[in-house]
Amino acid sequence: MKSNKIKNIAVLTSGGDAPGMNAAIRAVVRSCAFYEINCIGVFRGLQGLIEGDFKVLGPRDVKYIVSKGGTILKSARSKEFITPEGRAKAYENLKKHEIDGLIIIGGDGSFTGGLIFSKEFDIPVIGIPGTIDNDIVGTSHTIGFDTALNTAIDAIDKIRDTATSHKRLFFVEVMGRDAGHIALNTGIGAGAEEILIPEENIGLPKLLEKLKRSKASGKSSCIVVVSEGGKIGKNVFELSEYVEENLPEYDVRVSVLGHMQRGGAPSCFDRVLASRLGVKAVELLMLGKSQLMVGLINDQVDTTPLEKAIKGETSVDEELIRISDILSI
Amino acid sequence: MKSNKIKNIAVLTSGGDAPGMNAAIRAVVRSCAFYEINCIGVFRGLQGLIEGDFKVLGPRDVKYIVSKGGTILKSARSKEFITPEGRAKAYENLKKHEIDGLIIIGGDGSFTGGLIFSKEFDIPVIGIPGTIDNDIVGTSHTIGFDTALNTAIDAIDKIRDTATSHKRLFFVEVMGRDAGHIALNTGIGAGAEEILIPEENIGLPKLLEKLKRSKASGKSSCIVVVSEGGKIGKNVFELSEYVEENLPEYDVRVSVLGHMQRGGAPSCFDRVLASRLGVKAVELLMLGKSQLMVGLINDQVDTTPLEKAIKGETSVDEELIRISDILSI
Amino acid sequence: MKSNKIKNIAVLTSGGDAPGMNAAIRAVVRSCAFYEINCIGVFRGLQGLIEGDFKVLGPRDVKYIVSKGGTILKSARSKEFITPEGRAKAYENLKKHEIDGLIIIGGDGSFTGGLIFSKEFDIPVIGIPGTIDNDIVGTSHTIGFDTALNTAIDAIDKIRDTATSHKRLFFVEVMGRDAGHIALNTGIGAGAEEILIPEENIGLPKLLEKLKRSKASGKSSCIVVVSEGGKIGKNVFELSEYVEENLPEYDVRVSVLGHMQRGGAPSCFDRVLASRLGVKAVELLMLGKSQLMVGLINDQVDTTPLEKAIKGETSVDEELIRISDILSI
Amino acid sequence: MKSNKIKNIAVLTSGGDAPGMNAAIRAVVRSCAFYEINCIGVFRGLQGLIEGDFKVLGPRDVKYIVSKGGTILKSARSKEFITPEGRAKAYENLKKHEIDGLIIIGGDGSFTGGLIFSKEFDIPVIGIPGTIDNDIVGTSHTIGFDTALNTAIDAIDKIRDTATSHKRLFFVEVMGRDAGHIALNTGIGAGAEEILIPEENIGLPKLLEKLKRSKASGKSSCIVVVSEGGKIGKNVFELSEYVEENLPEYDVRVSVLGHMQRGGAPSCFDRVLASRLGVKAVELLMLGKSQLMVGLINDQVDTTPLEKAIKGETSVDEELIRISDILSI
Repeated sequence: MKSNKIKNIAVLTSGGDAPGMNAAIRAVVRSCAFYEINCIGVFRGLQGLIEGDFKVLGPRDVKYIVSKGGTILKSARSKEFITPEGRAKAYENLKKHEIDGLIIIGGDGSFTGGLIFSKEFDIPVIGIPGTIDNDIVGTSHTIGFDTALNTAIDAIDKIRDTATSHKRLFFVEVMGRDAGHIALNTGIGAGAEEILIPEENIGLPKLLEKLKRSKASGKSSCIVVVSEGGKIGKNVFELSEYVEENLPEYDVRVSVLGHMQRGGAPSCFDRVLASRLGVKAVELLMLGKSQLMVGLINDQVDTTPLEKAIKGETSVDEELIRISDILSI
Repeated sequence: MKSNKIKNIAVLTSGGDAPGMNAAIRAVVRSCAFYEINCIGVFRGLQGLIEGDFKVLGPRDVKYIVSKGGTILKSARSKEFITPEGRAKAYENLKKHEIDGLIIIGGDGSFTGGLIFSKEFDIPVIGIPGTIDNDIVGTSHTIGFDTALNTAIDAIDKIRDTATSHKRLFFVEVMGRDAGHIALNTGIGAGAEEILIPEENIGLPKLLEKLKRSKASGKSSCIVVVSEGGKIGKNVFELSEYVEENLPEYDVRVSVLGHMQRGGAPSCFDRVLASRLGVKAVELLMLGKSQLMVGLINDQVDTTPLEKAIKGETSVDEELIRISDILSI
Repeated sequence: MKSNKIKNIAVLTSGGDAPGMNAAIRAVVRSCAFYEINCIGVFRGLQGLIEGDFKVLGPRDVKYIVSKGGTILKSARSKEFITPEGRAKAYENLKKHEIDGLIIIGGDGSFTGGLIFSKEFDIPVIGIPGTIDNDIVGTSHTIGFDTALNTAIDAIDKIRDTATSHKRLFFVEVMGRDAGHIALNTGIGAGAEEILIPEENIGLPKLLEKLKRSKASGKSSCIVVVSEGGKIGKNVFELSEYVEENLPEYDVRVSVLGHMQRGGAPSCFDRVLASRLGVKAVELLMLGKSQLMVGLINDQVDTTPLEKAIKGETSVDEELIRISDILSI
Repeated sequence: MKSNKIKNIAVLTSGGDAPGMNAAIRAVVRSCAFYEINCIGVFRGLQGLIEGDFKVLGPRDVKYIVSKGGTILKSARSKEFITPEGRAKAYENLKKHEIDGLIIIGGDGSFTGGLIFSKEFDIPVIGIPGTIDNDIVGTSHTIGFDTALNTAIDAIDKIRDTATSHKRLFFVEVMGRDAGHIALNTGIGAGAEEILIPEENIGLPKLLEKLKRSKASGKSSCIVVVSEGGKIGKNVFELSEYVEENLPEYDVRVSVLGHMQRGGAPSCFDRVLASRLGVKAVELLMLGKSQLMVGLINDQVDTTPLEKAIKGETSVDEELIRISDILSI
């Protein structure tokens, strides 16, 4: 594969950072080197595009980052890019550097900006889904999701040690404002007694009932995994108080895992996924493609129109909810 | 779902152990409890079946094992089960305990034994693929594969630290006697300069040439991941000597990761996979099914006839070989 | 060494659990077996002593727990043990089981109870310091401290990844209500820009000034490690708001590490320490000693009167405060 | 503290790399910045001194390396530095850059070279002990030792999982050619049934006897930790064969942990230790001191003449050998 048209590709990371973004950057940079295309790194996401915060990246510039969390290109949210003036400035910078293809590693907010930009200035744009939330249509796994799951269950395993030693109930809040993917998978993975996700409101009475039953079954500790955006009408601290009041037999504690879920060395799964998607993104630009997102569909690298990716809404796997109930018996 | 027929299910682990086997055992035991079926754990695999090494398992007997490596039921290889006499004894034990369904967690060797046994005595058997090698047809991932990948890249990341500090070349041998899945994925995940797998013999001259090019490109260290069964005509120590003789510019070391790849707390992926397959296995028996293997196909739990699972041969993803070449530039 | 007098030793864990308590239990149990003394495990700390929640422990009962977090004997706080009646019941149980020596693994609260009990009923008591807080006089390291440090820096390293990607300031709260040992060591270990501990109130104006200077020095992220009991007049969330108001150039986030610091597989240091102290505790009872705490003093296992251990107050190492200032330049 | 004399300090890492070397480099660089001294990093150890492979290092050049394994200054062994001509070249380079103090992070080989150099050219030299082997007199802990212990027990814990599942005996070789510190501590930490170290030759008959007894005691697996330089007359593979022949009841495997023990993110202990020693090394040069090694003595930073540090021989703690015997009962 030799590209006749594409000479300079720009790559940036945008939105919340996710482990594996560096592996994706590396894959883009190395693929460009392999295909003899210049690769320009844009710092601080779409805002860096506006400010012209660019740096040429060669294959040695991305050495050893495959194993590093975060993003060497930094990330940011850009209010200016929402304005036509902001995007016009960004386009001027691309033109000045003769950039004829843009790769955006990020989530749906970033893709929306990228799609508008692509249409407005007829610049080819490819999206790579990078977010720990796994809430993007067009890929079974976003980059960073698998690592975040492992980070979370590692923390919950530790909490289980102390919960069991003291026969306590813990509410553990994991990330996921709009989607329960992290909560559902870590809840099953950590053997949680109950999982509260935005997609399903079991209601407080049923929660109490289940916790009562759990205690009665002879369990010496109890873990309830709660998604950040769990729609049960109370935040995790209010939940804790509510349960302490209504189930005095429980000694309740709260743990909010927080931002550590975003960092750390990516899992092998995320590194391989990021590598595959990064190579594909470059090759798509070489083939003259645009406004597509690369993703994993049925274990194969595939594409989805950005238009569809940003409008869709992922749903949690009903089977996982079902087996979570069975396994917490 | 309420089973009219199945009253007692036996579960065992067989062959090489893999992280996540305990999570699968737990899922089987808890599902049985949920559906009010008795669950009997068989120790030491098929040999334990012959010796009647049984123990009734209730839901509390499997507490906290979801996060533990190894298998609480132990594993073993059984020569006796290959003989009709051995299998007859095993059947006597099953009859004595009124076991009307058997779940085997293991690899293709174990499934072969299970299939013969099922045909011989008309006892329903369901297989759950548990092996770190990922070399079983009918599932995209075997239980333990994902964890083994993470264990291996964690070790290789550490080796990279010292390789880079001393500008060395390391040959790192990972598991996989017949299949290069572990080598290929960890090689990409760890950013290896070269990957040697049983499925592809690049030949010694090409290896030397690639290593020369790698040195010339300015890299300060070099990692070659070698599958246990890498078919390049030399074992990893011979390879090391060969390269030292032919490329004196390299300071070469060898590291054989070995059995640590089989242990450790399972990854979230493996725990969830094991949980899903364990529930499904019980439900299949309840539905009167037999001689099937449960697996993950296109991200969904699905089944494959054992007959097909044991005869098939997995192949490595050609795309991974291709991108490994691109990324090591 | 052969004991003429001691026939039955009881061991319990009390207060907040800490990684390595299991290794200490194992060491006590195995030492008893080695010296042919019966070992009785008491569940749920001093409360279990009152309730007679006892179990004879042989050397195989503690297999593989050296690597497990939590405590297999459970822990609890006992209000009843504070009363003479409670302690009288406890003594009755000891007498009934002919227990002639008691080993308490815990913190100063547990030692205080144990000392009163020992004086009241003339029962030999030896304390083993187990708490992540490292706030006990008579040992350079308490069991669990080293593991908690590693758990905390692992989490802060992950937070650093995302902090740097977004150029943010994070307040990270670590455990330590009365002592800054965890904060000071993890702050230095994680390269924190500032560390707030109970032993030193730098005051809000100085904090702002230091953060300003840090920003000016060109750092792209900032981590402030705060001890739970940091006496700066504001909790970690109030601190965050205060800084956001006064230093609008900072994008501030908060992370409370919480109970995960209490769990997890103990570090090698904690396992070896717990093993040494556990053996010594048994041998002291065999020598007719009582009312002592075993500890590490100048890298050697040594003893301190319980009287002194519970009254003393540890102080943080001034040198660490000094170098923290130097290194955050 | 303000130095009147010292203007330029050079720092290098030499010999086998160890986790925490980067934290020591950072501490040296930041201390220099704090005290307004120029800091020059020398690449590839003493060889880089000869070749003038220098780079000025400011405080931002060492950001985030506190958590990274390896050494950003690289390490190497230098045959040329053994010759007077080599050292003369090195001195020319130091003079040219007006370097008036040299800090060597490494082991006794490096210190020997440094001491000769210091005497020959009257250049102040301070040593910082960095090696995973903990075999240097004048410090209770060398930088990297604690991390290597944690890496090794993490691997052995994993091996224990599979050993127990299959009821196997594993010989696990850890690093330590001349000293058994790693083997002894990891052996106790991992609950090994037997530990073979260079300092003590228990002999083959006693080994067999102990393994027999272990099997008889009902243990379902057996781990023997062997120091690289274990002086029992056989290497780890020969040992394995010998035991298989003489104790056919055992199914024996070998695992050589190898170079992964040298890498990885340093433990909190090693980061704090390296930070303390790095600051002290700079301050000693400022005070006009030379030919000293900094180290940890009775938990305090202290100094030892290099002369003494390189001639002494560490001995293993007899108490650890004793308790290892007790605990493996």
